[in-house]
Amino acid sequence: MKKILIIGIGAGNPEYITIQAVKALNRTDVFFLMDKGQSKEKLNLLRSEILERYIDEADYRVVEALNPERERGEGDYLKAVDDLNSEKQRTFEQLIGEELADGECGAFLVWGDPSLYDSTIRILDDILHCGRHVFDYEVIPGITSVQALTARHKVALNNIGQAVEITTGRRLAQGYPENVDSVVVMLDALDSYRTVTDRELDIYWGAYLGTPDEILISGKLKDVADEIERTRKAARKANGWIMDTYLLKREV
Amino acid sequence: MKKILIIGIGAGNPEYITIQAVKALNRTDVFFLMDKGQSKEKLNLLRSEILERYIDEADYRVVEALNPERERGEGDYLKAVDDLNSEKQRTFEQLIGEELADGECGAFLVWGDPSLYDSTIRILDDILHCGRHVFDYEVIPGITSVQALTARHKVALNNIGQAVEITTGRRLAQGYPENVDSVVVMLDALDSYRTVTDRELDIYWGAYLGTPDEILISGKLKDVADEIERTRKAARKANGWIMDTYLLKREV
Repeated sequence: MKKILIIGIGAGNPEYITIQAVKALNRTDVFFLMDKGQSKEKLNLLRSEILERYIDEADYRVVEALNPERERGEGDYLKAVDDLNSEKQRTFEQLIGEELADGECGAFLVWGDPSLYDSTIRILDDILHCGRHVFDYEVIPGITSVQALTARHKVALNNIGQAVEITTGRRLAQGYPENVDSVVVMLDALDSYRTVTDRELDIYWGAYLGTPDEILISGKLKDVADEIERTRKAARKANGWIMDTYLLKREV
Repeated sequence: MKKILIIGIGAGNPEYITIQAVKALNRTDVFFLMDKGQSKEKLNLLRSEILERYIDEADYRVVEALNPERERGEGDYLKAVDDLNSEKQRTFEQLIGEELADGECGAFLVWGDPSLYDSTIRILDDILHCGRHVFDYEVIPGITSVQALTARHKVALNNIGQAVEITTGRRLAQGYPENVDSVVVMLDALDSYRTVTDRELDIYWGAYLGTPDEILISGKLKDVADEIERTRKAARKANGWIMDTYLLKREV
């Protein structure tokens, strides 16, 4: 039987990794590293640092595969992600079929937590269901950028007894969710916080969380929205990419 | 200057703790342990196990304080939590004032993550603002029961590109949130999943997550709701308490 581990390696800071994940890294024979492309070289380096730092014996293999990027643009978002995942599935099947022997343990490393805005669980599940490959798999949770954000800003996610919504920039641009005090926005390429009409909300924004490049800005939306937009644009230009998230919260 | 660490110690499994948290435990001179009462003795034991397992030199002090319990009942929930937090604040102030010397580092340990349905950040912030005590504090993120739940069930929290709401049993009983495919329910003492009208939803339920007593049940709400209710009741009776959470998810 082949064994596959989906390991959450946390959001940026190598010390966000759990003891369970460290043990999982040490059980792994083959790491399937999905390369995020040249622009995200820093992330790839950080991942290598995690392997070097936490694995006691370097008796593992590394197989790199190109992580296909979603076509950007105004087209059908769901279809684009679907196409992407079909392509990823083919890559994953090839890796599992050709690069992992029976009795061996392979691992996919996921930034943050494998359950939040990541497709690895879904894809492995699909592969199992179509029956062409047989394996057993396990999921190791990791610290998400949501938790990194609140920890660094020293702010609670929820108001007492209230709900929290985690959503995407795309959805936020369609309107602020009703009946929710706290909204976390991920995957926002469009500065959608600018479209929120209640400018009295507090915003807690963070980019490159947990890394040496981390930037934090917080305040009333009306006071800091412009600063965030400027900072975000400049940072993306300087680094070639940006990974950021924010919490919008109604003060009580 | 006094230093205080709010350390997320993860959801049950001692291996959910991060390297950052392990380092924080080792920096601590005084642990303020809020005793959860006799019924939750297992949780207190698990916490002691974490200290013993991860701290290299046992040169720390432990100060135990009784964690006041919220008055249960049909009264005003917000007021009850507010009263509770005022009482906690007095306890925390006393601990910081009398048990921690200048230059020392004190720590509060929080199950799961300090930002999610926990008041420690809020209370320390209030103490700082009222100006009677001066200290610096840091928040160390931890694996929440939400992540433990999805990892153990090997399920993604969100549908592709969709939002997730994290809410309480009390709020769910007032109606299933609109426009959200995935709802995580915490702090549900009332089996509120029974009130959800869409019985075709998938439910992923977990109790005592990450501990040896862990129980997992999943399936269509219509098929497993009764089983969850029976299991929950029996487990609470057997253990004297229960800590559980669940994800409701629309299949796509």
